[in-house]
Order: sequence, then C-alpha cells, then structure tokens
Amino acid sequence: MAEKSSVKLHGMWASPFAMRANLALKLKGIEYEYIEEDLKNKSELLLQYNPVHKKVPVLVHNGLPVVESSIILEYIDETWTDPPHLLPKDPYERAKVCFWAAYLVFPAKGETQQSMLNELLQKLDVAEEGMKDIFPNGAPSYSQDVKPGYLDIVFYSLFGTHEVASEFFGVEFLTPEKYPLLVSWIEALKQVPEVQEVTPPKEKIMGFYQYYRQKFVPPKA
Amino acid sequence: MAEKSSVKLHGMWASPFAMRANLALKLKGIEYEYIEEDLKNKSELLLQYNPVHKKVPVLVHNGLPVVESSIILEYIDETWTDPPHLLPKDPYERAKVCFWAAYLVFPAKGETQQSMLNELLQKLDVAEEGMKDIFPNGAPSYSQDVKPGYLDIVFYSLFGTHEVASEFFGVEFLTPEKYPLLVSWIEALKQVPEVQEVTPPKEKIMGFYQYYRQKFVPPKA
Repeated sequence: MAEKSSVKLHGMWASPFAMRANLALKLKGIEYEYIEEDLKNKSELLLQYNPVHKKVPVLVHNGLPVVESSIILEYIDETWTDPPHLLPKDPYERAKVCFWAAYLVFPAKGETQQSMLNELLQKLDVAEEGMKDIFPNGAPSYSQDVKPGYLDIVFYSLFGTHEVASEFFGVEFLTPEKYPLLVSWIEALKQVPEVQEVTPPKEKIMGFYQYYRQKFVPPKA
Repeated sequence: MAEKSSVKLHGMWASPFAMRANLALKLKGIEYEYIEEDLKNKSELLLQYNPVHKKVPVLVHNGLPVVESSIILEYIDETWTDPPHLLPKDPYERAKVCFWAAYLVFPAKGETQQSMLNELLQKLDVAEEGMKDIFPNGAPSYSQDVKPGYLDIVFYSLFGTHEVASEFFGVEFLTPEKYPLLVSWIEALKQVPEVQEVTPPKEKIMGFYQYYRQKFVPPKA
C-alpha cells in the first residue's frame, strides 16, 4: 500500500544549511526533486512554506513543509527509518552527537575579521580535543556500510571546503599540523560519493566569495 | 534486573535553562537529586562535566553527563520511555514542536532595552499566530493524563513569570488583549502542580532582577 511519496527540497547551492539537507537525502538514498532558489527573488512557495524565517532549506514531504536544517535532518532520519541512520539510537550517544553538532554550528560573533578568526580557532581547538572522544580510534573511514551521519554532515557543511576559504582569504586556519584529527576527518569525508555530489566546484565558491566581498565590504577609497 | 539508576541535576534556581530540566524530570516522575550551583563559584563537578560551556544545567545519569537544556529534554524523553511523552512520536508533529521551541528560545539581539523590547514583541506576534496551528482548539488544558511537553516547558521557562518582569521593568508586554492565546496558555500552565513546584516565588525573582541591574547597569551620576 506504500504510495510513492513526494519529496522536494528548496535550497541554494552556496548555503551550508541547504547542503546538509541535500547530503542527508542522498545518504539515505531518498529520491527527491531539488529546487534552486534565487535568494534575491525568493519563490512564492518558499515564502509560503517558511513564512517565519523565509530561508532555505525547506523540505516539502507530501505537501508538508519542514524547515531548519537540524530539524530537517532529524525528520529525515525518523521518517525513513531504513539504514543508514543519521543519528545513533542510543540516547547518550545521540546526546553527544547533538551537543557537538550544536557546538560547531554556533556562529562566531567577533566584530572584526581578526576576532572572528580567533574565535574560530578556539572553536577548532575545542573540537579537535572533543572529537577524540567521538572517534577514539582516529578519523572514521567510510564505506557502503558506514555512511556519514548527522555530525559528519554538519561538520562537512561548515569546514569541508576550508581550503577554498583559506585561499580566498589568504589565511590558513585548518592545518593538519594543528588539527590532525579534524583534517583527516575532512579528507575521509571527501572520498564519499554523496559528499562529492553536493560539493560545489572551487571556481564557483571563489566566485561566490568575490560577490559577497564586493557586496558587503565597501572598497577602500 | 532494572537497577535503580542515579540521576542528578546541577542547576541554578534563576536559570530558565535549568528550570526546563527540573520541570521535565518532575513531569516524567523521575526521582533525582538536585544540586544548586553557585555560579560565582562553580563546583569542580560542574566544570568537569561541562568543560566546554561550564554552564548549568547538567544532567548526570549513572555518572554520564548530558548538557544543554534542549538535549537534556530529548535525552530524558528517550531514556525514560513511559508516558508522559515530552515530544510527539509523529516525525512531522515533532518537527513542528522543535521548530517553535527553537524560535522561542533564540535570544533577542537588540542593543538597547527598547530595541530588545521591539524584537520581543515581534517574536510574540509571530508566536501568537503560530500557536493557532499548534493549538487549533485554543490553549490546552492539562490534567493527570495531559501533561505539558517540550514546547510547553520551553515556553513556560521563558514567559511563565512575565508578570514579575513587567512589574520590575515597568513595561507590560504580554497582555491578554494583544496575546490572548499565549496568555491563556501561561494561565493553564500555572495550574499544573509540577510547574508550580519549579516556579520561584515573586520576591526571589524581584531580588534577582535587582541584583542583576545593580551589577550590570552602572548607576547614573
């Protein structure tokens, strides 16, 4: 009796939040229609589905909207209960994963580029240490049977393309010398086919940074 | 074979985050030891259990720490699976509850008291409208069989003592004329015995505001 369900995702290619939803759907092997939003001219549907925040991503499942990337990931995992599971079943393991994901996501609040960088480095210091508890045997290696989960998705969406950011901003921040576990985690994730599918090409990211800088940082006289 | 488990909660009476954990444990009928922390002189245990944020609440279950109020609430609900359930089982209903809880919790960012108040009123406008979807038949009425859940707990921790705040700051913000659904929701929650148990007396809250104001707002010359 299982009818084929309708799954649509409203996203925007450069949004790390939308990347999380895209990656989760691909990892779970769920067929879906992807709708790219123009954030300067949002679709009527996006505004209707997410009237409070008016943001991507929005997952629309059989006509019902789910918003906020962390909530979308939980919804996906609870609705399509076949493996791979994005979150551990054990409540304590699950709590640890949710703690670290929330920790990574919380935005840097610095008022200057330097203070934001300092805050980011402090965060990476804590994460490098904390991940030793999550990965006691070192960075995970993925396979058909061991897929990335919730924490991997959040981490990759934030730091997966750190090398492009480093090149553009001229600041090396995620070095293998200082953060061996985090960097080898990223390297392992880069090998995963679904991760490769959702990663934009370097030139496209560089172009986005360029656009962003021109728009938000007034040129010096 | 079920051994009696050890449940401890490190909290601080004026923290709305700690109130959430206290209220959740009481609503689920879980026996626990409450440890009041002096935030000016945090216990060694608190620092050891929550080295990243060093904040209350911390739930310690059989020696394992769980931190962050939203994660603690999910952990409690998943670990003690008997009713009452804090979160709906249906993934879509659950997503809606988590969305609104996150919306309510997100802090006002205004830089002056007036801009914070404006932001708060906008938030309440959206919440009053949004709760019509959550409570299509008006504010819930609670009983032995219908206990407050996750969203009720978060809402009450933020707005349950709004009348004390209004009196102290001299600003009426949550009026029944403007927010009939939100105010009747609070009134219903105030009748719940577990809610009454975790609500500090008015004089104590007033004293806390007084202390806070003296500490953080320099007196005018």
